[in-house]
Amino acid sequence: MSHSLSTLLRMLLRMSTLLLKTLREEPAEAEVPSHRLLLRAGYVRRAAPGGYTWLPLGKLVLDRITAVVREEMTGIGGQEVAFPALLPREPYEVSNRWTEYGDDIFTLQDRRGADYLLAPTHEEMFTLLVQDMTSSYRDFPLVLFQVQTKFRDEARPRAGLLRGREFLMKDAYSFTLTDEGLTEVYAEVRAAYQRVFDRIGLSHTIVSAMSGAMGGSASEEFLAEAEVGEDTFVGCTTCSYAANTEAVTTPAPAARAIPAGSLSVHDTPETPTIASLVDLANTRQLGGRTDWTAADTLKNVVVTVRHPGRDDELLVIGVPGDREVDLKRLDAALAPATAALFDDFDSRPDLVKGYIGPQDIKVRYLADPRVAPGTAWLTGANEPGRHAVDVVAGRDFTPDGTIEAAEVRAGDPCPSCGAGSLTIRRGIEIGHIFQLGRRYTDAFKVDVLGADGKPVRPTMGSYGIGVSRAVAAIAEQHHDDRGLLWPDEVAPADVHIVAAGKDGQVEAALELARTLVEAGLRVLVDDRPQLSAGVKFTDAELIGIARAVVVGRRLGEGMVEFRNRRTGERGDVPIADIQRVITDALG
Amino acid sequence: MSHSLSTLLRMLLRMSTLLLKTLREEPAEAEVPSHRLLLRAGYVRRAAPGGYTWLPLGKLVLDRITAVVREEMTGIGGQEVAFPALLPREPYEVSNRWTEYGDDIFTLQDRRGADYLLAPTHEEMFTLLVQDMTSSYRDFPLVLFQVQTKFRDEARPRAGLLRGREFLMKDAYSFTLTDEGLTEVYAEVRAAYQRVFDRIGLSHTIVSAMSGAMGGSASEEFLAEAEVGEDTFVGCTTCSYAANTEAVTTPAPAARAIPAGSLSVHDTPETPTIASLVDLANTRQLGGRTDWTAADTLKNVVVTVRHPGRDDELLVIGVPGDREVDLKRLDAALAPATAALFDDFDSRPDLVKGYIGPQDIKVRYLADPRVAPGTAWLTGANEPGRHAVDVVAGRDFTPDGTIEAAEVRAGDPCPSCGAGSLTIRRGIEIGHIFQLGRRYTDAFKVDVLGADGKPVRPTMGSYGIGVSRAVAAIAEQHHDDRGLLWPDEVAPADVHIVAAGKDGQVEAALELARTLVEAGLRVLVDDRPQLSAGVKFTDAELIGIARAVVVGRRLGEGMVEFRNRRTGERGDVPIADIQRVITDALG
Repeated sequence: MSHSLSTLLRMLLRMSTLLLKTLREEPAEAEVPSHRLLLRAGYVRRAAPGGYTWLPLGKLVLDRITAVVREEMTGIGGQEVAFPALLPREPYEVSNRWTEYGDDIFTLQDRRGADYLLAPTHEEMFTLLVQDMTSSYRDFPLVLFQVQTKFRDEARPRAGLLRGREFLMKDAYSFTLTDEGLTEVYAEVRAAYQRVFDRIGLSHTIVSAMSGAMGGSASEEFLAEAEVGEDTFVGCTTCSYAANTEAVTTPAPAARAIPAGSLSVHDTPETPTIASLVDLANTRQLGGRTDWTAADTLKNVVVTVRHPGRDDELLVIGVPGDREVDLKRLDAALAPATAALFDDFDSRPDLVKGYIGPQDIKVRYLADPRVAPGTAWLTGANEPGRHAVDVVAGRDFTPDGTIEAAEVRAGDPCPSCGAGSLTIRRGIEIGHIFQLGRRYTDAFKVDVLGADGKPVRPTMGSYGIGVSRAVAAIAEQHHDDRGLLWPDEVAPADVHIVAAGKDGQVEAALELARTLVEAGLRVLVDDRPQLSAGVKFTDAELIGIARAVVVGRRLGEGMVEFRNRRTGERGDVPIADIQRVITDALG
Repeated sequence: MSHSLSTLLRMLLRMSTLLLKTLREEPAEAEVPSHRLLLRAGYVRRAAPGGYTWLPLGKLVLDRITAVVREEMTGIGGQEVAFPALLPREPYEVSNRWTEYGDDIFTLQDRRGADYLLAPTHEEMFTLLVQDMTSSYRDFPLVLFQVQTKFRDEARPRAGLLRGREFLMKDAYSFTLTDEGLTEVYAEVRAAYQRVFDRIGLSHTIVSAMSGAMGGSASEEFLAEAEVGEDTFVGCTTCSYAANTEAVTTPAPAARAIPAGSLSVHDTPETPTIASLVDLANTRQLGGRTDWTAADTLKNVVVTVRHPGRDDELLVIGVPGDREVDLKRLDAALAPATAALFDDFDSRPDLVKGYIGPQDIKVRYLADPRVAPGTAWLTGANEPGRHAVDVVAGRDFTPDGTIEAAEVRAGDPCPSCGAGSLTIRRGIEIGHIFQLGRRYTDAFKVDVLGADGKPVRPTMGSYGIGVSRAVAAIAEQHHDDRGLLWPDEVAPADVHIVAAGKDGQVEAALELARTLVEAGLRVLVDDRPQLSAGVKFTDAELIGIARAVVVGRRLGEGMVEFRNRRTGERGDVPIADIQRVITDALG
C-alpha cells in the first residue's frame, strides 16, 4: 500500500502541534459523562447554545463514523445526494409541516421578506426531487441519502452532542411502488443500520416506536443503551418484545358484564388528592369496602391540546389513580398536537378541580385502555367535596375513545406475549426507521407510469442516523473513570505513542510513528517536549486510544512498552517487534 | 489493492439505477454554460433561490474536489475543525461585523428571541477558539481549516453555483506570532492553493486584490479565467502585474506647477452631459481652444455613502469626464461602506445637477488620482447652465482626498512597471488569501505568553476556496458544445462504458465494468436496456467522462471501441487489452 505525503501527514498526529488542550477540571457546563469527557479530552468545544465545534480529534472520529454510514448505505444501493439546508416555505406549506413544527424549527426571512426555514428533515425535498427525476416504474426502487447538517430549535438543548440545535444527520428515503417493495427495502436498511452500529461499537436495541410528527405506520428506533439516555424503553422478561415507552400499548382487560350495583354519591370533604381520597374511602367504608387502593380510583386530568394551525381544545384524560399521566406518551399519542396541563379552572366552573368525574362531562374525554366497559370506579362527582362510587364505564359514562397516556411501569404485563412482564431501560436514539407511506407523495401528487401503463404512486420509507449524536453515544458506552476508550473503527488513531523521557525518546517515538504510518497505521504521537511522563499518560487515558506504546527508560536496550487499555495487558516489547504486536492487537 | 464490497459498489455506477435524467432542452433558468450543462447532464438541481441540490454525479465531483483541498491543506500542516453555521450575535458584535455585513447575511431569532446569524465566514470563531486552546508561543504557528456550508443573502443569486446563497467553502486561518511568520505561512498556503487548482484542472491567475469587508492588508485572489466570470482583472503587456480591477491603482501624473491663467465662468446652456459640454466648448472656442475632449473635463458624481451603523453621508467623486465611475471599484474603495447614486437634487439646491464643480463645494469631495495638483479642468460652475474653464486643482479647489473609483480601461498604463499597458480579462474568484493582521486578535484581546515571558498578540491570515463554485468554474473551463469534459482528478468516474446493442452487450459491459472496478478504476456503465446507442452516446458526451468504451457490434469478435474525447482518438481494441489501454490513457 502506498500513500501520498499528505495522506501520511493526515495519519500522523503530533501532539506537539495538534490543536489540543486537555482539561483537568470537570467542565461546569457538562452534565453527562460523554459531554464531560469529550470536552476534557479536547474533541469538541461549545460554540453556541446547542452548537459545538469539532476540534481535530473530534472531526476525525466524526469522519470515521460518517464513512461507515456512507459505506453501508452505498452497500444496499443507496445513492448519495445533498440538499440545501436553507429552504423556502412553500414545500413545507404543502405538507403542512411549516405549521406542525411550530417553534421547533428555525425560520427566517431573506432580504426580500420571503419566508425560509432551516430544514429539520427533508421529506418534501426528496419527494420533489423524485417527482422531477423519475417518470416510469423502471426508475424504482430508489434509496437516496444525504449526510447533512440539520437545525432544530430545541426548547432545551442539553447534554452536549446528545441534544443540540445544529447536528449532523444521515437521512435517507426509499421510494418503492408497492407496499411489499417498501417492506423489503425497510428490511435492507434495518440490516444496514445493524451493521453500522455494530461496526462503530454501539450496543443497541431495536424498539417499536411512534413516528411522531413525520406521519406513517411501521416505525422502529435504534437505541443505544445508556443511563443518560432521554428515551425510556421497555423489554419483556419472556419474549423479544422491545418498544419505546411512547409506543407501548396497554392490554385492555377482557370485556365484562355491567355490574348490578348502582352509582352512589358521597360527601368526601378535603380529598383533592388520590391518597386523601383512598384514606377517606377506607375510613368511611365507602360502598361497604375497606380495601380501596389508588388503582380503584379514576383520576381525570384536564389538558389543553394545541393543534398546529387550529384552535386549542380542552381534553380530559381518565387514568387509574395509581398511575400518572406520562406527558411524553400523551404528546406521542396526540402528535402532531401537543398537550399542556390545564390550570384555569376559574374559567370552567363545570370542571370542579379535584372532583372531576366522567359522568356527563362537557369536554372531550379519553380514557386509558384499562377503563374498559364494565369496570367500576371511585371517581369525582363533579361537585366540590363529593365523589361517586360504582361509576361504571359503559353505563354511567362512555369515553370518546381510549388513549395511551398513563405511565408505563416495570412489571406491567407484556402487550406482545402476555406472559412476561416489562422491564424499563434508558437509551439514546441513534437511528430511526419507518415506513412513511404515501403522506408526501400524496401531498405532492407524485405519480409515475406503472408497468401496466397506469399511473402508480410511490410509497416512501424514511431512515435517519444521528451521526454527531453517535459520537456522544459511543463515548457514553465506551469510557471508564480515567477517560474515553474508543472502539477501533472510530478511534482517532490506531495507536498512541508516548515519548517518556528526554534521552532521545522523542526522536525515537517520532521515528517509530513514521514507520507505523508507512505500514498503514494511524498514529497519535505525544512528542511534547515540556511535559512529564505522568501528564502524558493521564492525557493518553483521557483521549482514549486503546493501544499505547511507551518509548521510555528501556529505549537504550531497544525495548518499548506496549499497553492495551482494553485488556489491561502491559509488557515490554523489543522495538523491532512492536509493529507486529500492534497489528496483532488490532486483529 | 483490495476493496470492500461497498467500496466496489461506490466505484461502479450503473445508469440503469442511477438517479439521473439528462435534459435535451436548454433549461430556461440557466444563463451561463456551466449552469446549463450541470443541469442538463444531471449533476445538480435548483432547490431554492440560490440553493442547489447535488445529485449523485455532482456529489461525487464535489467530494473529489473536497478531497484534494483537504489533502493539500493537511499537507502544509493544516488541521481540520468544523464550526457550527448557526451562531449567536455576540462575537459578531465584538468585531462589528454584525453591523458591517448588513443585509448580506441571514439573521434570525430563536424561540427565545435571541439573535443569531448564519455565518458567512468564521473569523470570530476561529479567533475565540485559538484564544481558548492556546496559551504559549509553543502552540504556534497554527493553520486551522474547515470545509463548511456557508450562507450569504446575496441580493441577486445568479449563474447557478457561481453565485449562490448556500455554498460549500473551505475557509482557513493561520495564527502566527510575527509578521514574518505570517508571510511564511501565507506563502505556503499560496503554494498549496496553486497545487489544488492545478490538480483539479482550473487554469487560474493570481491577482492583487482588495480585502473588502474582511479588513487586512496583503490580499490576493485566485481567478479562474472565464468569459462569464464576475471579476474583471487586468494584466500587463510587459511585466507580470495582475490585479483585480478593484485593486488597480492609478499612477498619479507628476506634480506640475500651477498654471498662470485664471478661472473663468461661461454660459453653457443645455450641456448636462459631457458630450454636449465638449461639443459646445469646441463650438464656442472656450478658453480659446477647439481641441476639447472629454478627458479635459472634470465630471463630479454625487453618491450617498452608507456606513454600517452610522448615518448616511453625501460624497462627490471627481473623475476625468472620459471615464465612468465604476461602482464596484467605488464600493471596494469605501468598504465596509457602500455607495449608491444620489438623485434627490431637489433637497440640495447647492448641488446643481449637471453643473457641479469642485470649487467651494459643501460636501466631502474625493478626486481621481489623475486630478493632481496643477491640473486644469473644464467643469461645472455650480450654477444652472454655466461651466468654468481653467479650474485648477490645488488653486481653485483642493479635494479632501483621492479615491480609486474611475473605470479601468484596456490600454491604461501599468501601475507596476509603468512601461506596459493593461489588458482586461474576466475570471471567477475561486480562492482568496490575505494577510488579515490583528483586527480580530485585537477585537478579542488574544494574547499568549511569548518566548521572552511577555505577552504577544498573534497575527492572522485568512484563506478561502469556493469548493462548490469550483465545480462550476471547472465546468466553464472544461466543456464543448456537446457537453462537459471533466479533468481526470475530479471526474465522477475514470471511464464510461456504453453497452450499445442487445446481443449480450449489456451483460458484457457489466462484466467489463466489474473487472475494471476490481482493478481500482471508477466506472460509469450505461446498462440502460431501453435506449438506443445514439441516445447513450449523446448522454455520454453530455456527462463528460473523457474516456469511453463502447461495447457494440464487434463484441462477438472480442472487440470493443475505445474513445478518448479529449484527444478525439477512437479505435477498436481487443476486450482483453482494454484495461491496459484505459490505464495508459489515465497516465
